[in-house]
Amino acid sequence: MGGEVPLTTNSRKRTTLEDSVRLEGDAVLLLDRRVFPEREEWVRAETPAAVAAAVRDMVTQSSGPLFAAYAGLELAARQSRGLPLDEATAALQHAARLLGEARPTNAHPREAAARVLEAAAGARTTADLVELVAQAAADGSREYRALSRALGRHTVELLPDGARILTHCWMDTYLVEMIHAADEAGRHYDWVATETRPYLQGARLTAHTLVELGQHVTLITDGMGAAALAPGASIGPIDALVTAADRVALDGSVVNKIGTLGLAVAAAAFEVPFYALVQAPDRTAATGADIVIEERDPRDVLETLGRRTASPLVTTAWYPAFDVTPPRFVSRVVTSRGSYAPADLAHHFDSTPVPRLER
Amino acid sequence: MGGEVPLTTNSRKRTTLEDSVRLEGDAVLLLDRRVFPEREEWVRAETPAAVAAAVRDMVTQSSGPLFAAYAGLELAARQSRGLPLDEATAALQHAARLLGEARPTNAHPREAAARVLEAAAGARTTADLVELVAQAAADGSREYRALSRALGRHTVELLPDGARILTHCWMDTYLVEMIHAADEAGRHYDWVATETRPYLQGARLTAHTLVELGQHVTLITDGMGAAALAPGASIGPIDALVTAADRVALDGSVVNKIGTLGLAVAAAAFEVPFYALVQAPDRTAATGADIVIEERDPRDVLETLGRRTASPLVTTAWYPAFDVTPPRFVSRVVTSRGSYAPADLAHHFDSTPVPRLER
Repeated sequence: MGGEVPLTTNSRKRTTLEDSVRLEGDAVLLLDRRVFPEREEWVRAETPAAVAAAVRDMVTQSSGPLFAAYAGLELAARQSRGLPLDEATAALQHAARLLGEARPTNAHPREAAARVLEAAAGARTTADLVELVAQAAADGSREYRALSRALGRHTVELLPDGARILTHCWMDTYLVEMIHAADEAGRHYDWVATETRPYLQGARLTAHTLVELGQHVTLITDGMGAAALAPGASIGPIDALVTAADRVALDGSVVNKIGTLGLAVAAAAFEVPFYALVQAPDRTAATGADIVIEERDPRDVLETLGRRTASPLVTTAWYPAFDVTPPRFVSRVVTSRGSYAPADLAHHFDSTPVPRLER
Repeated sequence: MGGEVPLTTNSRKRTTLEDSVRLEGDAVLLLDRRVFPEREEWVRAETPAAVAAAVRDMVTQSSGPLFAAYAGLELAARQSRGLPLDEATAALQHAARLLGEARPTNAHPREAAARVLEAAAGARTTADLVELVAQAAADGSREYRALSRALGRHTVELLPDGARILTHCWMDTYLVEMIHAADEAGRHYDWVATETRPYLQGARLTAHTLVELGQHVTLITDGMGAAALAPGASIGPIDALVTAADRVALDGSVVNKIGTLGLAVAAAAFEVPFYALVQAPDRTAATGADIVIEERDPRDVLETLGRRTASPLVTTAWYPAFDVTPPRFVSRVVTSRGSYAPADLAHHFDSTPVPRLER
């Protein structure tokens, strides 16, 4: 769409990564974010187990596993057509378990599975089940986008026009909605993005999407964040550190991509606010210690996009996929309902949800 | 040499990178650290200007530019044989200027140049000059190693047997001497090394050398440092952050490879000491603000070892080669004469130098 067209939710720029998980016929297609944008390859998953494997193998991350879970569950239901209801239900439950377990730290697939199973429980026939699952998946995906839109608007309220924002890793739907919200509010931001080793989501996905959305972005390596935040930096001043969060505990501990903690500590040291974005805090986690941190294959640290970049003599590496930022380093947690100091985060649950209309 | 042989300064393990700048005949050979250890390639510099260009282009870094400057100056003197003394002196001064200006932040080549020019000022013939320059270069290199040895011993005094050490970038001669000092003292350390983007000196040079010296090392990406330092880390606890410093101002501000600041801030937040190693503070710099921070080609951030790793849409990046860690985040500065709290750093100059014998 032309740059002249006023941006509304109906006519706005689309980014390549927005529609990167698709259910087509009897397969789920997932854009392989491990190699994008160097190559645009789609992984074709023909069973719910294959979808779960793709999520586990990081074909898609961030918001991707949520959409993949809905698509995988709908695929399970479609493939159960013609089976008795109890067998179809069992197949759906099996798919829900596989998808829910694919990523220990990312709770989206488990939430998607719970929503779909709850809806499917009302089915009296297999045809009913297929219909209810499709409806729940569509509703869940739509709601996720609507909540992200609300979250984007609350984030923009914290960031004046002209703010320079440091971000880390890949905020996915939150990033896109935040920029649309900024456009609506007539605010323009200048972005600094970390490259986010080992997968380089920042260099590949975030920076790519920011440019697609007409934003100015400067790329830095992960070790440059503190220097960018420090007073007098030639790239500065940075007005805020803004990242998504995979999970936020009720005490305001922020679980997000490895590297977030170091940036948050530096931001606190140099009095730059850190805003962490999540649709809702995690009711099941009282503190950061209640959230499992996934450790992944250390080989990814020894390599860069599949090429060995460490000395061949080195055999040991460490790859925690996430870190936990204690609440003392978090300025505000932005949810779909507002923004909260970590100590007041429970107020999210007292606040007015996004109006029905928006969902 | 066999692992059974007691390690002394005369019979000890050699590392590949220890002898990586050589003057051979009428050329300086520099091991290309930009591609080592993937490839072992030597750059052949046949003029002092070519040596300076190699230093500027990062063929060698850390201690390398010091040895390259001495070799380049000796090359200049050798190539002046047969010229009148005033022309030979002018050529040497020209070489000294080129080499001294090659890296704005690294002061070693300037110090080497000053030492050589001072020695050469006593020459009464060109043959004299050639001899005096060779002697000054040999003395300077030997002294640098001896001071590094003393510095290594003072560092080991701070680190008990069994300490787990987080390091960043490439400490070069300091690292090698520190490990020999630990061996002499019967202390064994466990290392965690950051990969150090954009050049990956940690993944390539540091990790390689540590394994060559029989050390256990775990590689992490630059963004993982804070998570490693945080209480309860599965890789921890880390007992100290130890890095070299390219320069240390008289107020204790530490200038070192970009990324050091973020690690130092995280170490302070999690009460892990940070020891910065430098042979001597910089008398010419009262504070960190008096040290020029070199910015390099941003393309290096968009690439990894020569391969484009950022989205092709991204055109802007930032690459400050160093950052400045304020003294409040520095526990002790270790010099060739002892270790000092940042506020007491001036005492270095009152302390007893390394005995003549050692030099």
